[in-house]
Amino acid sequence: MSSAVRLVRNHRLTQAVDYAYAAAVDVPVRSLWLAGACPLDTEGRTVAVGDYAGQAHQVMRNLLAVLEGEGAVLTDLVRTTVYVASSRQSDLVAVWEVYREYLGAHDVPSTLLGVSVLGYDDQLVEVEAVAVLKREREDEGAKSGVGAESEAEAG
Amino acid sequence: MSSAVRLVRNHRLTQAVDYAYAAAVDVPVRSLWLAGACPLDTEGRTVAVGDYAGQAHQVMRNLLAVLEGEGAVLTDLVRTTVYVASSRQSDLVAVWEVYREYLGAHDVPSTLLGVSVLGYDDQLVEVEAVAVLKREREDEGAKSGVGAESEAEAG
Amino acid sequence: MSSAVRLVRNHRLTQAVDYAYAAAVDVPVRSLWLAGACPLDTEGRTVAVGDYAGQAHQVMRNLLAVLEGEGAVLTDLVRTTVYVASSRQSDLVAVWEVYREYLGAHDVPSTLLGVSVLGYDDQLVEVEAVAVLKREREDEGAKSGVGAESEAEAG
Repeated sequence: MSSAVRLVRNHRLTQAVDYAYAAAVDVPVRSLWLAGACPLDTEGRTVAVGDYAGQAHQVMRNLLAVLEGEGAVLTDLVRTTVYVASSRQSDLVAVWEVYREYLGAHDVPSTLLGVSVLGYDDQLVEVEAVAVLKREREDEGAKSGVGAESEAEAG
Repeated sequence: MSSAVRLVRNHRLTQAVDYAYAAAVDVPVRSLWLAGACPLDTEGRTVAVGDYAGQAHQVMRNLLAVLEGEGAVLTDLVRTTVYVASSRQSDLVAVWEVYREYLGAHDVPSTLLGVSVLGYDDQLVEVEAVAVLKREREDEGAKSGVGAESEAEAG
Repeated sequence: MSSAVRLVRNHRLTQAVDYAYAAAVDVPVRSLWLAGACPLDTEGRTVAVGDYAGQAHQVMRNLLAVLEGEGAVLTDLVRTTVYVASSRQSDLVAVWEVYREYLGAHDVPSTLLGVSVLGYDDQLVEVEAVAVLKREREDEGAKSGVGAESEAEAG
């Protein structure tokens, strides 16, 4: 509701896709560019070796942690790219289903693709994202951090 | 001409590429993040099975539909990524040639790459894009829709 | 220091990654979307055929040239994607090591992935990027070009 992101539908295209066709940002905003979230634990080890769905869960948990660290939430996402190290469409679908669980009604524009290999040992999944947040106060947003949104007033 | 996007050339690099080296946005803008456009018809079926060029045409038509639905045009694009499910460079080139037909003089910065597989059955092509539109009136842009640009006045 | 980009860390996630988890932009800015930088020389020929590290150097030199052409520097980068035409993780790592040499302390959010093929003959590496620059003067930024930053005053 307080998101700066407006998800865009299009009645001329198929409704048989489970994501928005675009995301529009119309107001002065703060943007957040996330590194591709990886299936790493807090020790930097790849979790769920060989398990596409298991890695997708860890990736989404890590992506949420980055958002939360900046006072952002999933509904601030404006676009994602979902990378799956596989040439089988079924592996892509397995990852996508986990990813979609986390997104829920905020079915942000996305691209899903199979890649030949990813950067970490045993890594099967990576999700990169861009978020756009409503600006709180001019030049004050960066300092206020997590949870500041409810206290801030428009500047 | 009324685009917020300025395509960037660079005389120190080769001129033997058919795209701009960067796109700059210098003014207050409205941004539009598009989902990867897919070769789906209005029933959600993949068209032109096995035909890279045929799918590229449908992808570009669908991308245009999303832009038009937001009152945007091709010259508002700021960046694209062209995904081709193939390991043969000739398939990438076939897709690129169709894609370039649509872009014309607005040779927006792009990346062209071969991927191992894409999300939909029989899908060979996907094009994702970001567009940046001149803001019309503060907070009014979202409501005015297709064709509003010529009527709007600067706020 | 004068960058509009603030690199984001996260203490809940592993520190065993050599890039920031996100990049935040909090102030009115000028954005620059770069085409994927390619390992081409000034004649448009692919250099360092068969040599991942050699191509990575040329890619980063070309990326720097585009930034410089717009009066931008590496610390203005907000996100990159590093594409490597290989299914071997060791090739990705070889490219990444060169890429990281150039970035230094500005360890911008990035995604590193293996792709099946890239657009140019013999091309093994491509790096795409988005930069965000502090605006200099309203509507004047585009004209002032390289080196203008130190002379410009806030509008």
